[in-house]
Amino acid sequence: MSLASDLLGGNTRHVERFDASELQVRPRRRLAVLTCMDSRYTGQGVLGLALGDAHVIRNAGGRVTDDVIRSLALSAALLGTNACVVVHHTDCGLLGRSDEELQQLVAAAAGTRPPFSFLPFDDVAQSVRDDLETLRACSYLPPGYEVVGFVYDVRTGRLEPVDDSA
Amino acid sequence: MSLASDLLGGNTRHVERFDASELQVRPRRRLAVLTCMDSRYTGQGVLGLALGDAHVIRNAGGRVTDDVIRSLALSAALLGTNACVVVHHTDCGLLGRSDEELQQLVAAAAGTRPPFSFLPFDDVAQSVRDDLETLRACSYLPPGYEVVGFVYDVRTGRLEPVDDSA
Repeated sequence: MSLASDLLGGNTRHVERFDASELQVRPRRRLAVLTCMDSRYTGQGVLGLALGDAHVIRNAGGRVTDDVIRSLALSAALLGTNACVVVHHTDCGLLGRSDEELQQLVAAAAGTRPPFSFLPFDDVAQSVRDDLETLRACSYLPPGYEVVGFVYDVRTGRLEPVDDSA
Repeated sequence: MSLASDLLGGNTRHVERFDASELQVRPRRRLAVLTCMDSRYTGQGVLGLALGDAHVIRNAGGRVTDDVIRSLALSAALLGTNACVVVHHTDCGLLGRSDEELQQLVAAAAGTRPPFSFLPFDDVAQSVRDDLETLRACSYLPPGYEVVGFVYDVRTGRLEPVDDSA
């Protein structure tokens, strides 16, 4: 069976229980969640959010990048969100790695060494603080835009607030 | 109540039903899903995937960007994924817009006009095709890496395969 056919089988199960009646394009809770691509959770799930509540932006690490700024600026200006929740997590593939190591791994797998940074970090609470600071300094988010950060523990399911008042 | 306290209340509900016993950092199905930040679905849900099955990368539109390449290259080389499923959707905020319009909207909301493109599109199947082509040409993904694309209909829950054999 091809990958596409296999995936369509999964979609059939989704369609069977699908109900869109309550869902609108504008997020009900006016939230955006930025988190890692990690397979073990959903952005909605860890925050107890329902479908329709929040935009969910995910990349390696849940880091703030130019592409995340593009997404958040659009989310706020076009679709009315006024806050971003940044969630990084324990046991992340970027934790404790170096760009040198990751670039070598990609070169070994793909044959070409990437020139870009993978945005690894050594301290997961500090990476959240760094990203909150970048968001607070962003000129493309509206006045009063709120940012808040957590570390998600993949062993317990718990979110730990990141104090970035310093 | 502060936003952080409110969100922690949602996490409490998550922790109550949390079970991590089966979950590993390497995605079980060796898949990465690239899709939009839209609030009305999860990347896992529309494909009938379980937690632990696939990395999920989300941004405005589900477009392939430098940040997505960073995430997919890491996903493949470090965590063993060998395919990416690109899912764009109907009723997307980027559909039928222009950069001029979106830049003006952000300028009106935030006070600063962004110089970057929001990657809008006029045809959702074509935007999937364009992104599949970019992924196929990417030097940082391993030989044999598979890409497949769908359009998700937010009114019906159905995925429509995108034929990009042309």
